Amino acid sequence: MAGARRLLKLSGWLPMKRGRLREPTLAFETWGQQNRDRDNAVLIFTGLSPSAHVASSPEDPSTGWWEDMVGPDKPIDTNRYFVICVNSLGSCFGSTGPASIDPDTGKPYRLTFPVLCVEDIARAGAEVVRSLGIETLYATVGASMGGMTALAFCTMFPNISRGLVAISSAARSTPFAIAMRSLQREMIRKDPHWCEGNYPPGEGPITGMRLARKLGMITYRSAPEWERRFGRERATDEAPNGPFRIDFEVEAYLEAHANKFVGAFDANCYLYLSRAMDLFDIADHGGSIAAGLDPVQLDRALVIGVNTDFLFPLKQQIELADGLKHVVPEVDFRALDSIQGHDSFLVDMDRFRPAVASFF
Amino acid sequence: MAGARRLLKLSGWLPMKRGRLREPTLAFETWGQQNRDRDNAVLIFTGLSPSAHVASSPEDPSTGWWEDMVGPDKPIDTNRYFVICVNSLGSCFGSTGPASIDPDTGKPYRLTFPVLCVEDIARAGAEVVRSLGIETLYATVGASMGGMTALAFCTMFPNISRGLVAISSAARSTPFAIAMRSLQREMIRKDPHWCEGNYPPGEGPITGMRLARKLGMITYRSAPEWERRFGRERATDEAPNGPFRIDFEVEAYLEAHANKFVGAFDANCYLYLSRAMDLFDIADHGGSIAAGLDPVQLDRALVIGVNTDFLFPLKQQIELADGLKHVVPEVDFRALDSIQGHDSFLVDMDRFRPAVASFF
Repeated sequence: MAGARRLLKLSGWLPMKRGRLREPTLAFETWGQQNRDRDNAVLIFTGLSPSAHVASSPEDPSTGWWEDMVGPDKPIDTNRYFVICVNSLGSCFGSTGPASIDPDTGKPYRLTFPVLCVEDIARAGAEVVRSLGIETLYATVGASMGGMTALAFCTMFPNISRGLVAISSAARSTPFAIAMRSLQREMIRKDPHWCEGNYPPGEGPITGMRLARKLGMITYRSAPEWERRFGRERATDEAPNGPFRIDFEVEAYLEAHANKFVGAFDANCYLYLSRAMDLFDIADHGGSIAAGLDPVQLDRALVIGVNTDFLFPLKQQIELADGLKHVVPEVDFRALDSIQGHDSFLVDMDRFRPAVASFF
Repeated sequence: MAGARRLLKLSGWLPMKRGRLREPTLAFETWGQQNRDRDNAVLIFTGLSPSAHVASSPEDPSTGWWEDMVGPDKPIDTNRYFVICVNSLGSCFGSTGPASIDPDTGKPYRLTFPVLCVEDIARAGAEVVRSLGIETLYATVGASMGGMTALAFCTMFPNISRGLVAISSAARSTPFAIAMRSLQREMIRKDPHWCEGNYPPGEGPITGMRLARKLGMITYRSAPEWERRFGRERATDEAPNGPFRIDFEVEAYLEAHANKFVGAFDANCYLYLSRAMDLFDIADHGGSIAAGLDPVQLDRALVIGVNTDFLFPLKQQIELADGLKHVVPEVDFRALDSIQGHDSFLVDMDRFRPAVASFF
């Protein structure tokens, strides 16, 4: 276990949108200190694949997945804020998920894990906040699936957070995004090594996960970025790939990303988290996006989108910001001109740092 | 053999860009009659997957793949024009391809088929034209890969065609399109039933082909179309799909398209044709797009693109039209506001019929 990771084991059952979970564990990390008024806490929800390790700390000096954004004198300044990041329920970095042992059977849940919804991840986050004795959050922050989760959190627990920062997120998934993720899941499920989810721990559908990661990467970046970055450059390192070898640099790039990902993420967890995004629709909480957002009681919200993001397109950020404007006194919407598509919040820090800092 | 299909068996070797082929057969169909001046022939190249059956005829009354565009009193009017459509070299609908028997071995070529390039498909088309005694074409027409082929044809055989109609095509593939197609090919190759290309004829990587077709369909349509058409509609017919069932209508739509495609196309042929598109770059014929287009000797060209096409984006149509303007006296460029993305030329006939008719 990494030195900074803390585990909260809940007693009894955690209710889920479509089931319940007995005594789940939630992994999280914290940075900074709570102030005397206990009103400086910032809760961060993650995208599909990261752990709770959003930034380095003395306890775990390894680079976090948003190292440039969170830390002393960073936009989310851990000298001023008490930052909490939760590993999503259903993930595989300490929080209970399909790869965890079911206490009732002594065996991994695998596909007996209840259908996971974004709302369940939000509820798990609320349990972590409660366990820390926090009644008020300065802000809830999330990008991508984390933005969906932050939005669900502010809808389901409207009295906790005073602010919301939703980045490259959405009030619900589009059919295009559903198609892209559904196909990723199918690639994993159709790998014979998936074994209907019953692969041995640590093994599993490596080929399916590699293919899924490649399609994921295609949806996370943008055509203009690749045009600028790769053009029609030929691959220099030809993988021993049979007669259909890697011809172009863009193929080698995807290959490298697939190699990095495999082994780092449990396939069943990926399936559950991916589907949770498809199922998310804030309109489920009231019949329309506006009605779904109605319970929200925020002072301020910041919505950030990127013009080259085609997975969570700018249109969805505008839709979300417009919806929030009906219920939130102060809504700031920013469309950033980043070239890296959906992943820009992880890469184009020169644009994202000031945008996020403006809120804090 | 379908009643309308004609076969041309070449004698000797057909030179290819990266190899050569002994005595290949080329399948084609024709509609209408050559006029006395022998200047009314129109040559149509196809996209990746269609056969030469572009339209119905007395000999083969089945609906063609561009039935609304080609026929008596249609935009490409077979009362006026002698229309020829060629099944691409490398395909599996009568023309020689990886699934055909290698006369030297008596066994299917499979992966011993030479690397296929768009230029080879164009050269095969020129052989068909020559065999019909045609020295001048009124126009060469193609959409998608067919547009690339038509462009290659007009570059390689500059004295034959007087007109060019290039639809949703490109002077070269972008890294984004390469990534999408490369991943489709990898899905097929990673299917254990591919057997390094040595699957029994008529069998093969069905799962890989299904996945590839789904990703293909995602790239052929558009996010706005699916938003309008499916939204978040739930699937009514749940496929017996295990715990990760089909939840949304968009997933059922992709499933139906995959079902239709499988069995209809040979996997190795798909791999070869798909890669041919990646490899195509008109700049290979001179060092830049402009230099590559320099040999072209057309009187007129029509370039059509669609604003929702993200596989062959409008930007590439503009690039192609601009390139042609340097060498072609009359270039008409049309950006159509169709919602069906790359496939619009097959679907949005209300917009495409008049656009194509304007040329003829």
